[in-house]
Amino acid sequence: MLIVQKYGGTSVADASRLRCVAGRIAKDYDGGHKLVAVLSAQGNTTDELIAKASELSSDINKREMDALISTGEQQSAALLAITLNGMGYPAISLSAGQAGICATSVYGNARIKDVDCERLLFETGRNNIVIVAGFQGINRYGDVVTIGRGGSDTTAVALAAVLGADKCEIYTDVDGVYTADPRIVPDAHKLNEISYEDMLELASSGACVLHNRSVELAKQYKVPLVVRSAMTDAPGTLVTEGKAMEKRYISGVAADKNTAVVSVIGIKKHSGGGCRLFSALAEKGISVGLITQAAGAESTENYAFTVTRQDLSEVRAILTEKQTILNFCKIEFDENAAKVSVVGAGMESNPGVASAVFEAISGIGVGIKMISTSEIKISIIVGESDADAAVTAIHRRFFSNPAERSNADE
Amino acid sequence: MLIVQKYGGTSVADASRLRCVAGRIAKDYDGGHKLVAVLSAQGNTTDELIAKASELSSDINKREMDALISTGEQQSAALLAITLNGMGYPAISLSAGQAGICATSVYGNARIKDVDCERLLFETGRNNIVIVAGFQGINRYGDVVTIGRGGSDTTAVALAAVLGADKCEIYTDVDGVYTADPRIVPDAHKLNEISYEDMLELASSGACVLHNRSVELAKQYKVPLVVRSAMTDAPGTLVTEGKAMEKRYISGVAADKNTAVVSVIGIKKHSGGGCRLFSALAEKGISVGLITQAAGAESTENYAFTVTRQDLSEVRAILTEKQTILNFCKIEFDENAAKVSVVGAGMESNPGVASAVFEAISGIGVGIKMISTSEIKISIIVGESDADAAVTAIHRRFFSNPAERSNADE
Repeated sequence: MLIVQKYGGTSVADASRLRCVAGRIAKDYDGGHKLVAVLSAQGNTTDELIAKASELSSDINKREMDALISTGEQQSAALLAITLNGMGYPAISLSAGQAGICATSVYGNARIKDVDCERLLFETGRNNIVIVAGFQGINRYGDVVTIGRGGSDTTAVALAAVLGADKCEIYTDVDGVYTADPRIVPDAHKLNEISYEDMLELASSGACVLHNRSVELAKQYKVPLVVRSAMTDAPGTLVTEGKAMEKRYISGVAADKNTAVVSVIGIKKHSGGGCRLFSALAEKGISVGLITQAAGAESTENYAFTVTRQDLSEVRAILTEKQTILNFCKIEFDENAAKVSVVGAGMESNPGVASAVFEAISGIGVGIKMISTSEIKISIIVGESDADAAVTAIHRRFFSNPAERSNADE
Repeated sequence: MLIVQKYGGTSVADASRLRCVAGRIAKDYDGGHKLVAVLSAQGNTTDELIAKASELSSDINKREMDALISTGEQQSAALLAITLNGMGYPAISLSAGQAGICATSVYGNARIKDVDCERLLFETGRNNIVIVAGFQGINRYGDVVTIGRGGSDTTAVALAAVLGADKCEIYTDVDGVYTADPRIVPDAHKLNEISYEDMLELASSGACVLHNRSVELAKQYKVPLVVRSAMTDAPGTLVTEGKAMEKRYISGVAADKNTAVVSVIGIKKHSGGGCRLFSALAEKGISVGLITQAAGAESTENYAFTVTRQDLSEVRAILTEKQTILNFCKIEFDENAAKVSVVGAGMESNPGVASAVFEAISGIGVGIKMISTSEIKISIIVGESDADAAVTAIHRRFFSNPAERSNADE
């Protein structure tokens, strides 16, 4: 088998963990597999480099920042190759450029465009274990670019896709995908399997275990993805196509606490104000999450939408500047909101999920600020302080009721 | 003017020193010059990376070691570019690959073969300050290789040569080339000028201010080299062609304490044993310094030669293994020797230098173990504990005598 593995920063943080990772790779290699491992930077390396740069400039050039922080992954890749070589295994580290990872030119947030896998095939062909620096690519100017949050997961999936790997294993500090965050919901269950679609919705709903770009890519190229712990031998969770999972209709519950709600009140009806509002935000690159629209007083409409908390001050500035053009009455901001989402591809053919969610929430006396539903997801906005209770109540409603328990794998 | 500058690890060790370097570059840029700066890794970065690797393997793969430690220079280059950008100056960092530095394939000790300076010319052409990661190149496999001791000096000189720079400034933690190490000889003088030839001999005699490979390259391409302090505005020492320096016949005195003496006693005369001896060492890559040969007892010859202390145990192993073939009587090792050298191109036309050296040494009661002379250098081997006294005595003899003082520039 050809296996692509990805190890996160915690898994390679120090010498003893690197040895542990090397042992795992060596075992798979001894099992007759061909191996490509994608590494994140060690522990806090990236943050330390960012701190160094921030000490030197308040407005850091993104090209240079990428040149700087991409060295972290290059270091961990070389260190792992050194460890494996020291153990007598043939291993070689490759920078993103050497691995042929071509990316768009957007410094700090590039996307992988293509992988020229000649070198990768050459190295695996001569039975080398190939260690690739994650989180980066080369753009058309020959510069190193980083590929944004969750980048190393995306690197691993992209390599698995072009190499036609039998599977892509994401080694992380949790042992799989759970029906909810086990730190919040103690009786959350680990899922043996989840569909790409459900994983995507969970990932974009605050479950941090995988970044949604890597899941999107895995779905597109049908790469079987396994999420498992670098510390244990537990089998983890397989993310794959959804056929075998028809009986389960809810996959999990997740909370995203990085949520702020903006309410724009009193836009004149049929004035096109709503359209101008969201165009103005999009122009500045602001991602809007949920949107609701409701009739207001005297032929006006009210809009509410969610943004990340980092974007809030910019949203405030844009709206204040454009109040005259947008022609609204007032704006309100709620910084302390959270989005709680229930995800499951089976939802569509199982009516009553929404009502079960409302029941669960009203049963614990929590107020719902906004609601949004899609074919496979129901999201509600609650106060941040209510989020954990809401997740727990919803999880109990779908997973802890013995009659419904068959929903989740053990 | 196009100026290539090199800043050593101490000069870029932390944020305040990086700001100081950036200020110096900015001032030159404001003065209308085009600038290329070559950087070493910050402070102890390289040693720290080597320590990390050593913790993981006792037999470190050299390719991976190069991939690892070359990140140090890439980081300092990016950090300086970030600093300059933050100050409003257009600066761009380039890795050795981006700067077009092609090197031989010998990991850990490659040599620069060629520089494809298209990108460098493009960047200086659009008035960018170009910051290049020192100490490294790209080999024909596309791998990063490091270019050995003093590598960043060599990078700077190589870039100055291909770019036809008006000068190459080596910024370091001393303010120039001295007639002797000022820490040992308090009245050592700074030289305003020194010839390439004398600088080469001084560099290979233990004066660490410049690595001899960089001086060789500067001599070959007639690059005017300036050694100066990154901390002060003192003008430093110009290393250039020797015409203007005819009046001075001694440039300096240096000691190399990394010296061990090996004596091979009782090789049969005319047996070819001496030839086999040095061939055996050369085969294993051992560099031999001084060699003396003298008649021994009963138709035999004795050889003595110097090696670095790191090579001593390997020399011992080689000679012990080959005793029968080499057909010698016994070997002796002296680990605590030092080489003291007097350098000066004017020596040739000024007889009496050797006798002055012997006078100075015998005047302080130090024993000479070996002697070697060339056209522009006299080296003697003394005990390590006598080295500083020998340097001081020789320096006094040539530089502190008022009648001869005109030898040195002030």
